[in-house]
Amino acid sequence: MENTYCVIMAGGIGSRFWPESRADRPKQFLDILGTGKSLIRHTFERFRPMFRDEQFRVVTQRRYQQLVLDHLPELKAEQVLCEPIGRNTAPCIAYAAYALCKENPEARMVITPSDHLVLQEEALRAVIAECIDFTHEREALMTVGIRPTRAETGYGYIQISDDERISKVKSFTEKPNLELAQTFIQCGEFFWNSGIFVWKARDIITALERHQPEIASLFHTIGHLIGTPDEAAALERVYSECRGISIDYAVMEKADNAYVRCGDFGWSDIGTWGSLYQQARKDRYANAKPQEGCYTYDTRSCIISLPKGKVAVIDGLKEYIVVDTEDVLMICPRSSEQHLRKYIDEVKYNTGDKHI
Amino acid sequence: MENTYCVIMAGGIGSRFWPESRADRPKQFLDILGTGKSLIRHTFERFRPMFRDEQFRVVTQRRYQQLVLDHLPELKAEQVLCEPIGRNTAPCIAYAAYALCKENPEARMVITPSDHLVLQEEALRAVIAECIDFTHEREALMTVGIRPTRAETGYGYIQISDDERISKVKSFTEKPNLELAQTFIQCGEFFWNSGIFVWKARDIITALERHQPEIASLFHTIGHLIGTPDEAAALERVYSECRGISIDYAVMEKADNAYVRCGDFGWSDIGTWGSLYQQARKDRYANAKPQEGCYTYDTRSCIISLPKGKVAVIDGLKEYIVVDTEDVLMICPRSSEQHLRKYIDEVKYNTGDKHI
Repeated sequence: MENTYCVIMAGGIGSRFWPESRADRPKQFLDILGTGKSLIRHTFERFRPMFRDEQFRVVTQRRYQQLVLDHLPELKAEQVLCEPIGRNTAPCIAYAAYALCKENPEARMVITPSDHLVLQEEALRAVIAECIDFTHEREALMTVGIRPTRAETGYGYIQISDDERISKVKSFTEKPNLELAQTFIQCGEFFWNSGIFVWKARDIITALERHQPEIASLFHTIGHLIGTPDEAAALERVYSECRGISIDYAVMEKADNAYVRCGDFGWSDIGTWGSLYQQARKDRYANAKPQEGCYTYDTRSCIISLPKGKVAVIDGLKEYIVVDTEDVLMICPRSSEQHLRKYIDEVKYNTGDKHI
Repeated sequence: MENTYCVIMAGGIGSRFWPESRADRPKQFLDILGTGKSLIRHTFERFRPMFRDEQFRVVTQRRYQQLVLDHLPELKAEQVLCEPIGRNTAPCIAYAAYALCKENPEARMVITPSDHLVLQEEALRAVIAECIDFTHEREALMTVGIRPTRAETGYGYIQISDDERISKVKSFTEKPNLELAQTFIQCGEFFWNSGIFVWKARDIITALERHQPEIASLFHTIGHLIGTPDEAAALERVYSECRGISIDYAVMEKADNAYVRCGDFGWSDIGTWGSLYQQARKDRYANAKPQEGCYTYDTRSCIISLPKGKVAVIDGLKEYIVVDTEDVLMICPRSSEQHLRKYIDEVKYNTGDKHI
């Protein structure tokens, strides 16, 4: 693993888990599965068998720097790259690539979201190791695909072009509608986009220069300031000018050297209460609820989250989400989860940012 | 109003409003209607136009003495009669009667629960004044009846024997079943039992001696200790021997000098979440909910109670009770309110008294 770095992207604010996640404690810092560890901690430990502590980098928003260090005390402050604001994954990855390339021109990056679930970590590591090997020999932009188990409309899809273990990417499709998702599943050529990438830092920089010359030029201009006391001010300028765009849209869809290694390792992006429900341990009435203090009657297929030590008595709910926090209570049907944005907007409009 | 005392009974623990009411903050000390004042404070102010502050007495459990004084700072500590434990209304009233009779042999008592709602207070006071007048001339045990507006099965009923403004009581019936309650309403002779009584202290003592000689004898034995430093210890003995029984069962049903003055003054015992719902101000979707911070969607005919400052988003509930407190959340259909005792028992069994 010489010259290889594990880059954890931890800048998201995760409003889809409101009111559990908040602007000041996003999802990656929560123990949303009730395992005793936050999602970012799980992510770190998942890759630790492959990397030494000093090979990790975390990219996050500056306001979460201390939270990252609290959750990953093994890291030094300089291993946490701080964006002034979130601008989606393309600027995040560009920043990490320029920073690592400056530090080590041979740097190779394994990039992972900080807030996903992987049940078979050993299998994931084997896939990652293969991806790293593959990028040794060629200028490949590797992504990891997941064999789909349902016609999920909340994920991006990657189409493969052949049946090799590592295939050239034929196309990317963001969140299809249900009909299209069903076609994808039947067709067999489509895999979920895990958001995990492997490549050499200089190769993604080359791709950015080709497909996103504005972003590349912004970071190129401040390259000499990275790692100096002027870095933060320089990043302020770059991020104020840089548009927010995902690496998939910005580079992967356009690149002719995108490859995908498809795997099967019990993955979920746990992007919504619904997907958390899929993964959670349930009682015999299919309720995902705290093991203690939650008394349910005539209640089925609910997902219930309570603050530590709180008691709840819930009677007569079917397929609801009940999330209680210190200052916000939310009760809604599981089928109304897409209204979450509307709830948040109304609360924000009426009571300001305090509860957001 | 010379020689007349207003006795407020405030010893109940009100478990029917759990989790809002708790053993250490019963219903009478809560602002359960959201008016800005507790129910006991409303009760006090309701009778204040008729009585000077020194004419009030409150009977409560010793552990609530300070709470009473906090809510009614106009009273002196010696105006709060402290029972060691709750034993229903007969011992409570006996204690007050013996204490007042010792202080003033001519004492007349207006006895009222501390946790009921009266909307037309002026009308109530007129009724009370009439009752007081009535007891001047005779040894009458007066009770106040309420013209029923529905076949309520949670109340006691009083049957009148004639159409006079003040009628002799023909019978008392505790909580009838629905069929019987409907018959009562149609018949026109039955009124709700408000739990408000008016009589001379020595007359209720005479009635206790006749119908409850054990209770009378217990209090008679310690009569000389009331108002002395030995009163508390004496009461401990009396209450440990005395059985819990209501004044209706103990005396009123048996007495041949029970009279009732029926009135109509916007009364409710707000004994349950359901009866609170009846009285509460509702939004245009018939939800009784806090005016601020409670955002409802596709939600109708619910009663929602939140801690101060808490935000709630509630979607898709019809006819539910949602009560959130600092340490307990309860969600149940309004039709399941009778299960409250079961909820409380289960929480108590599993987590002890902490949340009760």
